[in-house]
Amino acid sequence: MGADARTVPVPEAGGRLRSALERIRPPDPAWGARARERADDLAIPAGSLGRVVELGVRLAAIQGTLKPSFPRKAVAVMAGDHAVVRQGVSAFPAEVTPQMVANFGRGRASINALARSAGARVVVVDVGVEADLTALPGLELTRDVAEAADLGRVLDRKVRRGADDISEGPAMSRDEAVAALEAGIEVVETLRARGLDLVATGDMGIGNTTPSSALACVFTGRGPEEVTGRGTGIDDRALARKRSVVARALEVNRPDPSDPVGALAKVGGLEIGALAGVVLGAAAAGIPVLVDGFISTAGALVACALAPAARGYAIAAHRSREPGHRVMLGYLGLEPLLDLDLRLGEGTGAALAMPLVDGAASVLREVATFAEAGVSEGGDRP
Amino acid sequence: MGADARTVPVPEAGGRLRSALERIRPPDPAWGARARERADDLAIPAGSLGRVVELGVRLAAIQGTLKPSFPRKAVAVMAGDHAVVRQGVSAFPAEVTPQMVANFGRGRASINALARSAGARVVVVDVGVEADLTALPGLELTRDVAEAADLGRVLDRKVRRGADDISEGPAMSRDEAVAALEAGIEVVETLRARGLDLVATGDMGIGNTTPSSALACVFTGRGPEEVTGRGTGIDDRALARKRSVVARALEVNRPDPSDPVGALAKVGGLEIGALAGVVLGAAAAGIPVLVDGFISTAGALVACALAPAARGYAIAAHRSREPGHRVMLGYLGLEPLLDLDLRLGEGTGAALAMPLVDGAASVLREVATFAEAGVSEGGDRP
Repeated sequence: MGADARTVPVPEAGGRLRSALERIRPPDPAWGARARERADDLAIPAGSLGRVVELGVRLAAIQGTLKPSFPRKAVAVMAGDHAVVRQGVSAFPAEVTPQMVANFGRGRASINALARSAGARVVVVDVGVEADLTALPGLELTRDVAEAADLGRVLDRKVRRGADDISEGPAMSRDEAVAALEAGIEVVETLRARGLDLVATGDMGIGNTTPSSALACVFTGRGPEEVTGRGTGIDDRALARKRSVVARALEVNRPDPSDPVGALAKVGGLEIGALAGVVLGAAAAGIPVLVDGFISTAGALVACALAPAARGYAIAAHRSREPGHRVMLGYLGLEPLLDLDLRLGEGTGAALAMPLVDGAASVLREVATFAEAGVSEGGDRP
Repeated sequence: MGADARTVPVPEAGGRLRSALERIRPPDPAWGARARERADDLAIPAGSLGRVVELGVRLAAIQGTLKPSFPRKAVAVMAGDHAVVRQGVSAFPAEVTPQMVANFGRGRASINALARSAGARVVVVDVGVEADLTALPGLELTRDVAEAADLGRVLDRKVRRGADDISEGPAMSRDEAVAALEAGIEVVETLRARGLDLVATGDMGIGNTTPSSALACVFTGRGPEEVTGRGTGIDDRALARKRSVVARALEVNRPDPSDPVGALAKVGGLEIGALAGVVLGAAAAGIPVLVDGFISTAGALVACALAPAARGYAIAAHRSREPGHRVMLGYLGLEPLLDLDLRLGEGTGAALAMPLVDGAASVLREVATFAEAGVSEGGDRP
């Protein structure tokens, strides 16, 4: 975590991006201190609720209250395609992206089930699906964020039809990268204006572990062998191919970590840009963002490179089975809440972690202090 | 996991215990196979939801359905005291047990907050608190399980006032151990008759990591150094003392793992017996039981020694910071869902894991199959 947000070049085009970056401040340390004090007074042995109380303190600092609560939740699922799949880096064909987007729209995918279970809305956004979704039978699209949230329709914010093959050149132009970032920011801003306390990230895009691996290399400085994994389940030969594709993408494009928008444009993807936008939008709005798995964390890397203070709003939902995820989380200094061998994406890990956010908030909000409860303190308590 | 339930001696006294043991059968393998088949057809890459789908399959087999759901939940918090605290094995004084029971009764403890957050009731049961709880100002007790569940009153099932010092002799008589087991079974049976889909265990009892460590030794065959930890936070000297107290308890009482009721009576505790009863009651009723941390798992050890088939209904909620917990879970072959550095007890880890049960069930219940979703399967899929 190096550069200050103000030293990072942001293109002139991005009014919404620039405005979000200007508004991002770290969570208020004064509220953090007050929350820590309250947590230390709770009628439980010191440290006995482990990471739950630590999370509660962070949530209180983010929300600026000793009684944090997060009743209004949404998962923003960003969808895009990747021409790099023609290099044979994925176990699934590219046609699965629109099929799964349609499945999201019908409410029958894993993220729909898990978000319902967590009491969260799902907002699915086409930022860069290759196929023309309007041609899909039975799938209703909308240009209106509110309608997408309320009716479960797919939001049309298509910046372009798929990213170009990063092993041969840039994924997209710089302006397109800004448009993808701004799509994510816009979704959070609009939902927040209508009432949103907690947002989670989710992704859909066949092939997107490849650009995510490339971005992991750019920002963490590690090599393709360390961060590239099997995605949805490729074999050893395909894995070797995928690693050399990531290496070639870095060689051909020469992305610069001190220019995050440029790096996103060169070796990223449209949905990854939109996921970075969700993290930036949440930080600008002052609400916590549950970051899902490998792809979402690649988005968080871009976001935190643009605005290091955004990190204070990011909560790592789970540790993916993808090996590079550990590297990215370590670089960001985030400790994931769950470790359930997930590698699906869609925001599934983030939805599963939402009730932990509710639980942690409830402890800080509702548990009596030693004094209130009339409970004797332990002899070994500091 | 050795002996068959029928070979284990059960005292004549225990009509309710005997009846529960006779009813316990493993979850139906035919439903397990059907659930596995459905899980393999879901429109997600094979294995990509990791342990969530594995849990969903277990839940479907337990409930005997492809559409498992668990809307009616309860946490049974069993409270008892331990005269062994006079050996200096705990960071907190014994007076904290009734203080915390009163705090549960007021709804202001961690388990109340977390159970509310998970949509679960809390049933607090005095099976062996040393103090006379009727003397506590503002605390209402009841003899009625339904009233305890509906009004949040403390259920009076006091078998005796605290367990005796296990470093000097048995904790209780054999009949008292049976009564403690039956208190747990009764709570589950009564709640189940009124509608209960999922139960969780919780404990309160200053000093209860000491008998739990002793029971871990009895059933897993490991030594006191391996399984005895710092409980709510004792220092190095107290830890050394606690280990020698556990060793002395085993030496003085010579508990026999092939006589689980006898082992419970010799080196256990009243709340530990009641927790074992909750596990047995759940298994007999055919509902899943979320087993909380170290103390609850000691109860599960007793339950599974009495009825090995009960293990099929037990879901390990979390891995406690207490080192012996890993040993006990390994012996039972249970993999915990959460690892959040908890060591509070009360059922807090189990309440935090409840939404994961809901989530896992929702995936099996609501996600479309590849055929239903019209999604192409991956080339690498078996």
